[in-house]
Amino acid sequence: MHPTQFTEYDKIYMARAIELAKQGRFTTTPNPNVGCVLVKDNIIVGEGFHQVAGQGHAEVNALMMAGTQAKGATAYVTLEPCSHFGRTPPCAEGLKAAGVAKVIAAMVDPNPQVAGKGLAILADAGIEVASGLLEPQARLFNRGFLKRMEQGMPFVTCKMAASLDGKTALKNGQSKWITGTAARQDVQLQRAQSCAILTGADTVLIDDAKLNVRVDELPEPLPTQLPVRQPVRIIIDSQNRLTPDFALFSIASEIIIITTELDKSVSWPHYVTHLVVPEKDNKVDLKAALQQLAQQQQFNHIWLEAGATLAGKMAEYNLIDEYIVYLAPKLLGNDGKSLLNFAELTSMQEAIDLTINECVPIGDDIRITAIPRLVALP
Amino acid sequence: MHPTQFTEYDKIYMARAIELAKQGRFTTTPNPNVGCVLVKDNIIVGEGFHQVAGQGHAEVNALMMAGTQAKGATAYVTLEPCSHFGRTPPCAEGLKAAGVAKVIAAMVDPNPQVAGKGLAILADAGIEVASGLLEPQARLFNRGFLKRMEQGMPFVTCKMAASLDGKTALKNGQSKWITGTAARQDVQLQRAQSCAILTGADTVLIDDAKLNVRVDELPEPLPTQLPVRQPVRIIIDSQNRLTPDFALFSIASEIIIITTELDKSVSWPHYVTHLVVPEKDNKVDLKAALQQLAQQQQFNHIWLEAGATLAGKMAEYNLIDEYIVYLAPKLLGNDGKSLLNFAELTSMQEAIDLTINECVPIGDDIRITAIPRLVALP
Repeated sequence: MHPTQFTEYDKIYMARAIELAKQGRFTTTPNPNVGCVLVKDNIIVGEGFHQVAGQGHAEVNALMMAGTQAKGATAYVTLEPCSHFGRTPPCAEGLKAAGVAKVIAAMVDPNPQVAGKGLAILADAGIEVASGLLEPQARLFNRGFLKRMEQGMPFVTCKMAASLDGKTALKNGQSKWITGTAARQDVQLQRAQSCAILTGADTVLIDDAKLNVRVDELPEPLPTQLPVRQPVRIIIDSQNRLTPDFALFSIASEIIIITTELDKSVSWPHYVTHLVVPEKDNKVDLKAALQQLAQQQQFNHIWLEAGATLAGKMAEYNLIDEYIVYLAPKLLGNDGKSLLNFAELTSMQEAIDLTINECVPIGDDIRITAIPRLVALP
Repeated sequence: MHPTQFTEYDKIYMARAIELAKQGRFTTTPNPNVGCVLVKDNIIVGEGFHQVAGQGHAEVNALMMAGTQAKGATAYVTLEPCSHFGRTPPCAEGLKAAGVAKVIAAMVDPNPQVAGKGLAILADAGIEVASGLLEPQARLFNRGFLKRMEQGMPFVTCKMAASLDGKTALKNGQSKWITGTAARQDVQLQRAQSCAILTGADTVLIDDAKLNVRVDELPEPLPTQLPVRQPVRIIIDSQNRLTPDFALFSIASEIIIITTELDKSVSWPHYVTHLVVPEKDNKVDLKAALQQLAQQQQFNHIWLEAGATLAGKMAEYNLIDEYIVYLAPKLLGNDGKSLLNFAELTSMQEAIDLTINECVPIGDDIRITAIPRLVALP
């Protein structure tokens, strides 16, 4: 790998590859989003992105478009080309066979099956290689995949919705509707981009929530020709309180129930599986559960949409990587319900410190995105 | 008054007059902020703004700068020129005497002593007059004065500060510091622009708050040559619990204590006065108190910086015209204290509905400005 001085043209082509990569964001799970642009004599001769696991990688799609023009071209890829036979042959070999002259990757693939081997194959074949161009941008949309590869944990986004005075519901439990249509549509879009939606049994027991992506509520035509993928629905049910008669189970798509002990007396639909994880304080060990979800189930990005108790515990244990808070222009007063339940703080130093990344209007509401100031795994 | 088709030039000169008017925002109370631009042959020959009550009005200052060039000029004023002898002679007469050819006002002065009479004096003298140019912009920075004139009530801004999960303090009362330096500086700037700061006795009894403008914390040099004016500090003390030994009273600037019955046994510093108002539910009648503050004490814009009980009551009674909420990137959990205490809601329709006007970063925090969707006086 030779360090290279990247030109402004290089940046423009990589930015285009990143745009392409993002088109796969609704469908590639558990694979990363990848885009590829092939450029010859300053003309784009091939473009491609990875759309769905098991089908063509970005490089293969771009090479197919370029045909014989790939010979002598420069390939811009948002992630190091793969070096291993998975469900498709290694892309590094494909680029080599097509005769590309140069490969620029935004970043090395942290997947231990690749981890520099893809670029090494290319370099060994005399192809000029470089990486690191627009790497921060490329990391951003693959942060779920990267966290799983680098830390063996999923990237967890915690969604919350409250009034401007921080209340999620009235004392009597009424919470429909605090936020407006646009915010609820935005939630559907966020769900659709997640690998899985995680919640606690209470949300099913109390709200009879279905937790699916409601396609007719999506705010825009999805940038994919594929049907909308339903994220896997994951319910933490430490006390085995769920039964198959809730609305959640009326939708025939994958459900994972996480518990500490299997109750074999209940008969579940075929799309329901159970994950038995160790116990901690008489409940599901949340960190162990997330580890299993990442390492065994290959979930990259999990959308946590839970009540104050589960969300509070996840926050307290530093298991949340991002908070998305929808605040509605309403005041509900002190009797309303709080956003997060966790152990009483006795000093301001014990507060969970965040950094606000973004604050934007969504219809009449606002959406605040914040990340923990220190993401430390306990 | 002749309706006129305003030109783009007219808008530019009036926008300049508005910029000038705003320079008085720290000092003109109880007068409105007014700016004036005199233009002759497309050249600005005079500019002025009202700086402090009892001294020159905007028109007088602009005429002084223009001298003999005022003759035949067009005057752009952000508020109708006054027609009455107050602490200074009527500006309409001044403009007439100077020989201006045309007067364009952003709005008619709702002050019953003026209310069209200023423009009438000018029109009767054969001067071309018009009003309504950039009126919404001109109303905005005088909304305190306008509310007092139009409704006999002050414009009340309720300041709140909380963590992202809507908590103002820990259960043990600790609240220093939820928001950062920049937000606290911003509060000082807002205080400095208010006629008065309103709070409840609890804030004095519990926090020993001084409620003054801390000049060294102001975030910018003030756009005024005058010393920083200390807003009048107003404390609602229904039970006469205050005593002169709190820090509040260590600063020798005006304090008004609002109560329902005067306790004559206590001896107060000379800068402390009492306002006795009718009682409602054994406490100060808040609406009656605000009416007195506007109609007798001439307060235009009141900055409410109170605890959850007083702020909650003010919200419940529709006495708040604007909410400014500083949210810090912190999570304090369900044991933290709520922003607003008011009677339990039983249906979402009972929520106080707001419209969010602005959401901006202030240092590491964000500041959300919202106004009631319906400002209805009960």
